[in-house]
Amino acid sequence: MDRRSFNMRLLAGSAVAATGVTSLSLASAPSATSAEGAPRTAPAGGAVRHLKLYAEKLADGQMAYGLEKGKASIPGPLIELVEGDTLHIEFENAMDVPVSLHAHGVDYDIANDGTRMSKSHVEPGGTRTYTWRTHTPGKRADGTWRAGSAGYWHYHDHVVGTEHGTGGIRKGLYGPVVVRRKGDILPDKQFTIVFNDMTINNKPADQSPDFRATVGDRVEIVMITHGEYYHTFHMHGHRWADNRTGLLEGAADVSRVIDNKITGPADSFGFQIIAGEHVGAGAWMYHCHVQSHSDMGMAGLFLVAKPDGTIPGYEAHHPAGARTNAKSNAKASAGASAGTGAEAGAKSGADGASPGGHSH
Amino acid sequence: MDRRSFNMRLLAGSAVAATGVTSLSLASAPSATSAEGAPRTAPAGGAVRHLKLYAEKLADGQMAYGLEKGKASIPGPLIELVEGDTLHIEFENAMDVPVSLHAHGVDYDIANDGTRMSKSHVEPGGTRTYTWRTHTPGKRADGTWRAGSAGYWHYHDHVVGTEHGTGGIRKGLYGPVVVRRKGDILPDKQFTIVFNDMTINNKPADQSPDFRATVGDRVEIVMITHGEYYHTFHMHGHRWADNRTGLLEGAADVSRVIDNKITGPADSFGFQIIAGEHVGAGAWMYHCHVQSHSDMGMAGLFLVAKPDGTIPGYEAHHPAGARTNAKSNAKASAGASAGTGAEAGAKSGADGASPGGHSH
Amino acid sequence: MDRRSFNMRLLAGSAVAATGVTSLSLASAPSATSAEGAPRTAPAGGAVRHLKLYAEKLADGQMAYGLEKGKASIPGPLIELVEGDTLHIEFENAMDVPVSLHAHGVDYDIANDGTRMSKSHVEPGGTRTYTWRTHTPGKRADGTWRAGSAGYWHYHDHVVGTEHGTGGIRKGLYGPVVVRRKGDILPDKQFTIVFNDMTINNKPADQSPDFRATVGDRVEIVMITHGEYYHTFHMHGHRWADNRTGLLEGAADVSRVIDNKITGPADSFGFQIIAGEHVGAGAWMYHCHVQSHSDMGMAGLFLVAKPDGTIPGYEAHHPAGARTNAKSNAKASAGASAGTGAEAGAKSGADGASPGGHSH
Repeated sequence: MDRRSFNMRLLAGSAVAATGVTSLSLASAPSATSAEGAPRTAPAGGAVRHLKLYAEKLADGQMAYGLEKGKASIPGPLIELVEGDTLHIEFENAMDVPVSLHAHGVDYDIANDGTRMSKSHVEPGGTRTYTWRTHTPGKRADGTWRAGSAGYWHYHDHVVGTEHGTGGIRKGLYGPVVVRRKGDILPDKQFTIVFNDMTINNKPADQSPDFRATVGDRVEIVMITHGEYYHTFHMHGHRWADNRTGLLEGAADVSRVIDNKITGPADSFGFQIIAGEHVGAGAWMYHCHVQSHSDMGMAGLFLVAKPDGTIPGYEAHHPAGARTNAKSNAKASAGASAGTGAEAGAKSGADGASPGGHSH
Repeated sequence: MDRRSFNMRLLAGSAVAATGVTSLSLASAPSATSAEGAPRTAPAGGAVRHLKLYAEKLADGQMAYGLEKGKASIPGPLIELVEGDTLHIEFENAMDVPVSLHAHGVDYDIANDGTRMSKSHVEPGGTRTYTWRTHTPGKRADGTWRAGSAGYWHYHDHVVGTEHGTGGIRKGLYGPVVVRRKGDILPDKQFTIVFNDMTINNKPADQSPDFRATVGDRVEIVMITHGEYYHTFHMHGHRWADNRTGLLEGAADVSRVIDNKITGPADSFGFQIIAGEHVGAGAWMYHCHVQSHSDMGMAGLFLVAKPDGTIPGYEAHHPAGARTNAKSNAKASAGASAGTGAEAGAKSGADGASPGGHSH
Repeated sequence: MDRRSFNMRLLAGSAVAATGVTSLSLASAPSATSAEGAPRTAPAGGAVRHLKLYAEKLADGQMAYGLEKGKASIPGPLIELVEGDTLHIEFENAMDVPVSLHAHGVDYDIANDGTRMSKSHVEPGGTRTYTWRTHTPGKRADGTWRAGSAGYWHYHDHVVGTEHGTGGIRKGLYGPVVVRRKGDILPDKQFTIVFNDMTINNKPADQSPDFRATVGDRVEIVMITHGEYYHTFHMHGHRWADNRTGLLEGAADVSRVIDNKITGPADSFGFQIIAGEHVGAGAWMYHCHVQSHSDMGMAGLFLVAKPDGTIPGYEAHHPAGARTNAKSNAKASAGASAGTGAEAGAKSGADGASPGGHSH
């Protein structure tokens, strides 16, 4: 999402359905570009927030989470918190099979675990409220250090198909969670990439999602893996730090900087990159680097445009008119769909039919 | 193990067989709980220690390491050292095939490598002494930094079945090694979880080990992978830092905090968690998050009881009487079995037959 | 390579073909041993360098990169830069199929991406110049920290066989890239180990490469994975830090020290070890620790000799004469082949036919 859409999501809860917003963002923000002065950072947490979430079947038989009935997406909505926040999720099962909501990273008591064993799933037509808490880092009474909740986390079903939600996850019941620390740098745009079995975001191989940004945008990628296989996530032309934020803290930070990372089911990580930094605009591939996986279509494009909207080398495959339309469509819908399927929805209706040479 | 059992294991070596202790712990300790004042920490190393270790076949055809004849366990005994310690292991092969002891992390010359190529294996009925050394961190003569030996390591056979010990490892010939740095925080309880092929600690799928603690216990998990497959280790309700100790050092530590980690054969890591911290008591699942693996039974329970011994939500599946018996059995045997199969033995005879919904 | 060979490679570019040097090293150096005073470190970068690189088919049907026609090697030549350097690679396709050069880690614009989609591949018989840039770390205008280019990276084909270069990589079109930071410690010897599908450096299982050093040598390993499978890289008797350099920065560095690491295709990392430190001379195995992989031959030897050239325990399998010849051959050819296939070429002609018990 861009900063202009932040204001729309200031307050979660009942307001969400009314505005049609499909992600829960933490921040209000003035419309500042990343090139101007210091970047915006996360405020202090401590808020008690409310959200309505649905699980529903999609027309194509897949399953998804959504903030409004009939508007579920794969991945599900991005849920963003600051350490110290509490989130109450009124969760409604609009499907005909039991389903649940199990989260990674955040704090929840056993009655909010989202498993059948703990009886914290939801029967068809039922509703229950899941409460997630988060905490700041600090010293314990015994003097040892307690880590905070900050991280790139995720949620998923834990009961459809098997006791571990294998069927629900396969069909699309998953989504990203970002918990920030006060002072963490906020991005201009956020995209979620989920390697789920042999798909990206449950899309067919020839429709793997593309993501759009302009040179200089601070882009945040939340990368999650699900299902059965290991993968290696690779981006062309961009790198990140293999630490909590994906950003080096300074000269003393010894974290490895990488552009390729092995991941397995339920692993998650995130990072921010400055689109095109050091490399410029272009249609930059991202893909699984397991050779058979990329050959079978686990590849998409990170489309980084110049300020004038052009993407060098990309026009030949994608006529300027189509590309421009696609881009403005994506922009127009950013306020509504940011964080859901990581612009994939906007893209599907635009240039989704033109994967060209990138996906196999 | 709890702190009350530390005194029993103060000195390794010939005393071990007499006391029936099945792990080599580093520390003597007053009986202090983790809630009182600063936690206990590892003393300085430098000791020369002795241990008798056996390799033997179990009644069910599996193979295991043990500190006493007839009492081998899978995983083998936890061996715990402090940087600077030297350990001489008098190793006896009580099986009818050649076997060896190969360690990760510690220092050993090539004659102690535990491989057939280095002729450091042991013929049936034979005995040999393996010497492992450890060292503190510090500066080399050239001014560069030399890492210490501290880490969560392990040992295993390297000759049964193949030149790489594939048969021995498959049947159970492996165990944990913890090397601490002076000042490292000591845990109240320790559990070892080994994902070996498609089993946890070589247990059948319906008997995956459960682990018991009380809210507030400082619990240490040593996680090792062996065999053929990659896995992702996940714990419900608890997280750890992806660094040397599994604990953040403070606010400046940029290590990622995770609750899910991809691992492959011979990888090992460890961490400490405060049982139920932020989430309370409960029957918390831990499992491989590769969906087919958890569905096939690679899942167990981290049973965190309230101070009064109850576990919310767990009674329904496990009648109070049975559970209470199981718990007191585990407590009673903690002094004898801590570190061996991570309480799995105690659990098998108690609530091992009641995995309920958690293991498939 | 040893320090004595550094002078030979001071300047890359047109001089390379003339000298027969097959790696691009960054540094000139006096002949100092690692035991004397402080180790040499990387100078400041900023140079503009030139290199001629060829892709060609080998006699056995494999494909490789090389700095001279007819002298390609698998892995391809080591390319070493310092942050701030720019490298222009005049790349000639001496094969009968299109090929490319795609790099990880360094900066390149989309016209240098080495993919068919960006039309940056090279037709048979064609030549094009790829430009790679690198940058130092520092603060951006907005005050945030920008990571530098330093890292253990690699290059590979991205078009042979499939749009992702699956055929080219399988046949051997890959090589290491090391980008150093000013002040990074320089090694005495460098070896590249690539787990490519089920091979090491594309060698048959019974000819996995061995690597030679003398106790006290500062040895750098660049470890790359390619192809289809995940692996776990393990070294006997030696450990490294899981951070940017593979070296702990000091007492405050919380990085995990490991001797086993899971990797997947296109992952790369590197580290320096002092040969035999704490463990002495010996024929130390390195291998994939996935049991079936090591059993099928993914194993080699790190041969660490005493100053007098002997290797304890290794003579029994390898008669002293043969070993001595092998060793002196390797030394003699170090200036010419260092960095190409990581001494594998020298070894193949020497003790390559005597893998003995180490590789299966």
